[in-house]
Amino acid sequence: MRYFEDFQPGEKLPLATYEVTREAIIAFAAEFDPQPFHLDEAAASRSMLGGLAASGWHTTAIFMRMMCDGWLHDTDAAGAGGVDETRWLRPVRPGDVLSGVSEVLEVKASRSRPGFGTVRFRHEVWNGAGEPVLRMLNPIAFRCRQTSAT
Amino acid sequence: MRYFEDFQPGEKLPLATYEVTREAIIAFAAEFDPQPFHLDEAAASRSMLGGLAASGWHTTAIFMRMMCDGWLHDTDAAGAGGVDETRWLRPVRPGDVLSGVSEVLEVKASRSRPGFGTVRFRHEVWNGAGEPVLRMLNPIAFRCRQTSAT
Repeated sequence: MRYFEDFQPGEKLPLATYEVTREAIIAFAAEFDPQPFHLDEAAASRSMLGGLAASGWHTTAIFMRMMCDGWLHDTDAAGAGGVDETRWLRPVRPGDVLSGVSEVLEVKASRSRPGFGTVRFRHEVWNGAGEPVLRMLNPIAFRCRQTSAT
Repeated sequence: MRYFEDFQPGEKLPLATYEVTREAIIAFAAEFDPQPFHLDEAAASRSMLGGLAASGWHTTAIFMRMMCDGWLHDTDAAGAGGVDETRWLRPVRPGDVLSGVSEVLEVKASRSRPGFGTVRFRHEVWNGAGEPVLRMLNPIAFRCRQTSAT
């Protein structure tokens, strides 16, 4: 189990890989982002995406699963208050197998909440060709070791 | 149909309302964010969330649907490259009926892509008690009127 003290600036934590299917792209879009270029191949071809692509919110949700399975499940994470920057860099296509990494930028013990600390990450997700499709700056709170032991 | 020229700074566009169910919170978390406090009431009670709450990525996906149904479907939106700031301000609970608004902060015609312009929004989502649960700063690209007519 990793606690706040176990994160070091510069450290790179791999995300789990994730295959994105055409069916999943359309199902997510139908529920949460029913714009034509996420639902229909013909409409998508005429759009700036140039073909069917996942909703950006589908990509961020998939990122979360990749982070949970990759390394977050082995930590005592206490949640995140937000994301400082989210960039959808390229379309995510049917059949893409995504991979990625969370890089530790900074660690800071909390003054207002003793026993907790915040780790700032730059997360990056790549498509099958190794091109970045998503980049985020995201602080996550973790319990310190001594607090968890009580 | 609204085009880039139709957005005015200060304008407030209401989001559609959306009821969040316990079943949907757990289903989304099981697929994308399987942390105990999004899946299990007992674990959630012991966490900083103080009870079962939606994944933040579920809340952003729901926001997208509220924006599509509220006003985006009547526009010629061409996509968004990212979000400048995402803040999860309060937990979203089972039974919450969410509402919200997109406020136009700034409009800027594109120099690099003639016929397009970017509208910067501050989106805010509230719970049933009218308390903010999500706030985002988000530029979205729209086609200009003359481009769409060709």
